[in-house]
Amino acid sequence: MTIAASRRDAEILDQNDPLASFRDLFHLPDGIIYLDGNSLGPMAKSVPGLVEDALERQWATDLITSWNTAGWWELPLTLGEKIAPLIGAGTGQTVVTDSTSINLYKTVQAALELSPGRKVIISESDSFPTDLYILEGVMGETGLSRRLIGEDGAGLDQHLSDDVAVVLLSNVNYRSGALMDMAEVARKVHDAGAIMVWDLCHSAGVIPMELDAWNVDFAVGCTYKYLNGGPGAPAFIYAAKRHHDAIRQPLSGWWGHGAPFEFETRFRPASGVRAFLCGTQPIISMTALSAALDVYGEVDIGEVRKKSMALTGLFIDLVEKFCPQLGVVSPRDANSRASQVALSHEHGYAIVQALIARGVIGDFRAPDILRFGFAPLFIRYADVWDAVGHLREIMDTGAWDNAEFKQRAAVT
Amino acid sequence: MTIAASRRDAEILDQNDPLASFRDLFHLPDGIIYLDGNSLGPMAKSVPGLVEDALERQWATDLITSWNTAGWWELPLTLGEKIAPLIGAGTGQTVVTDSTSINLYKTVQAALELSPGRKVIISESDSFPTDLYILEGVMGETGLSRRLIGEDGAGLDQHLSDDVAVVLLSNVNYRSGALMDMAEVARKVHDAGAIMVWDLCHSAGVIPMELDAWNVDFAVGCTYKYLNGGPGAPAFIYAAKRHHDAIRQPLSGWWGHGAPFEFETRFRPASGVRAFLCGTQPIISMTALSAALDVYGEVDIGEVRKKSMALTGLFIDLVEKFCPQLGVVSPRDANSRASQVALSHEHGYAIVQALIARGVIGDFRAPDILRFGFAPLFIRYADVWDAVGHLREIMDTGAWDNAEFKQRAAVT
Repeated sequence: MTIAASRRDAEILDQNDPLASFRDLFHLPDGIIYLDGNSLGPMAKSVPGLVEDALERQWATDLITSWNTAGWWELPLTLGEKIAPLIGAGTGQTVVTDSTSINLYKTVQAALELSPGRKVIISESDSFPTDLYILEGVMGETGLSRRLIGEDGAGLDQHLSDDVAVVLLSNVNYRSGALMDMAEVARKVHDAGAIMVWDLCHSAGVIPMELDAWNVDFAVGCTYKYLNGGPGAPAFIYAAKRHHDAIRQPLSGWWGHGAPFEFETRFRPASGVRAFLCGTQPIISMTALSAALDVYGEVDIGEVRKKSMALTGLFIDLVEKFCPQLGVVSPRDANSRASQVALSHEHGYAIVQALIARGVIGDFRAPDILRFGFAPLFIRYADVWDAVGHLREIMDTGAWDNAEFKQRAAVT
Repeated sequence: MTIAASRRDAEILDQNDPLASFRDLFHLPDGIIYLDGNSLGPMAKSVPGLVEDALERQWATDLITSWNTAGWWELPLTLGEKIAPLIGAGTGQTVVTDSTSINLYKTVQAALELSPGRKVIISESDSFPTDLYILEGVMGETGLSRRLIGEDGAGLDQHLSDDVAVVLLSNVNYRSGALMDMAEVARKVHDAGAIMVWDLCHSAGVIPMELDAWNVDFAVGCTYKYLNGGPGAPAFIYAAKRHHDAIRQPLSGWWGHGAPFEFETRFRPASGVRAFLCGTQPIISMTALSAALDVYGEVDIGEVRKKSMALTGLFIDLVEKFCPQLGVVSPRDANSRASQVALSHEHGYAIVQALIARGVIGDFRAPDILRFGFAPLFIRYADVWDAVGHLREIMDTGAWDNAEFKQRAAVT
């Protein structure tokens, strides 16, 4: 039974939503239902002011002194602390730097250093591809090999043996939105003596996590999806305190040095998570991210999860009721589902384009997936109702069957 | 004989300066003589407007469509083309991405792939330390070894043998400002069958270069010094066209894939310099850089070099005349000098602090170097005259000998 049998029901849910006030903190274009916050989060209204200050005062006026006085040098750590509570990390274990891909490289290399003699990396065949590409780069011409398990952890038990050094998994399937049981997976991995590295790109900010309590070793994630950090905002790394004296990774640049301003000729890593830093960081982009993360300072992540489950559940219910032409790919059990819903249709690309033409923004993933993200800080129950209304009309009228909608763009 | 025997002479040089009008394009705080543009360039006045547009229109309003419509996805290449004319690179060989340190890692790895069987990397003991740290990361536990030559290329001939795979050098010594003969060095390196990688951090935008004509293989450089890209703005990579079919580097993320939106499970590198991309780039910081690089669209780099030689020459002449307590570390021959001047004094740190207190911003490099950068787009001959006037007063009165000035800050 659905939680809203009418648009009025949906409006009442919005009226009683404890997160309702957060929507006003974001700039959302008129007439748009933005179901792509899982790809690029919208801009918090506080961003331009902070960025202007970083430009006009910190850079233009205070110039190099801002490395100290504006805290630029410490931004990777400062921003890490803003993310830490969202992922269940105690202080001093999270740092913002570089891209997700580069951070995957660093953390997997660090994990391998902690597993001498073990030569196998396990990952998932349905990972977001960059995870697999980076593993190829790590393996290079060494004696390492890779075993790929099936979707959602299928086959993990069989592949976990005493030659496995590292398991790298995303806790959310980027297409289907299926959510793994992180605690259980990490336990299995540790039982096999391997190191666990999580890719949290599709869950940070929307799925409650207890990385410390679950004994996770390392994690990386991006900040421009649910964390709303802005296009290409730098990514983060979590490193459990127990590894802090032994972080060794080959991108050993001066920001990761134990005494970067001594200008020593030999590298010696900084202690702690700082050892994952490499070079100078893009301060203006980090400032935008900083403003975005401040929004989360007031957010109860448990409430976010509750609303996310309700929004995605409502969407699935309404699609099943009104759009029988579409398959539901995402898990129906809310506990096994992240904050996105994947539908399937052989003309998925054209249907997504037809929705976009009506102001409902989702995205398409080959071969046939229509993907919709439900970011609880700004998506309303009424938005879900209206989005399905548009989808129903498009399906019932065949409005997607249009040459313009079938023409694929270079980047989607 | 100096080119200005009085402040009036300096003012006349400014009146006749063909680059004089560029100063107005920058935001420069009142009362400041900014001789640290070699560390962090000032902000072009065009930056805030472009950044505001990237925030308010591209991100907040157009959202994910901006990956296509605002050209975000192509920014690394677009910005690369703006840098290319400044380094003598034909089109399609320059890309802006990541940090200098990470780009050093990628280019040295690519160079090693081009030199199978050769096991030695040559660099310089007096490199900016991150270059050496990154080489340690590259060498890791492989059979590679490193030979360090002396300052300004001393000993290169003896070390170049047929086991040398890569030579990584900065064309400017970051402390002394000594400038190498890049064409001659690259010729020697190629005669030995090795690959040449240049670090151009301290020369891009201020020293004319002909990377194509000089047969350079790879180069990296930062954009926040003379290119004025803003704090931590992403760095660049140059890769000679002849290597474009064979670029292999281990940071093989999805932005460097031949078909990133096909979501293939195996990595195959993009053709050309795009193979040096890895993950998603910080668009807001890149937008600031884009505005800064537009300033260079109108600049004659030959005029920049002429003025740079004149400014640094005048500074040295005046320091020798008025400040005999200070040593001149930089080469006196303008052809062997980049756009910075290093002086020496055992109390160099306190002297730099005393200058800063008077609005003359330079920096200090251990153990005893006072470093001053002369960015010809905004530094005037009269600024040089006035800066030396302050320095003379500080030295003559002993004003530097003050507990406050001797207290070292964490970051300088």
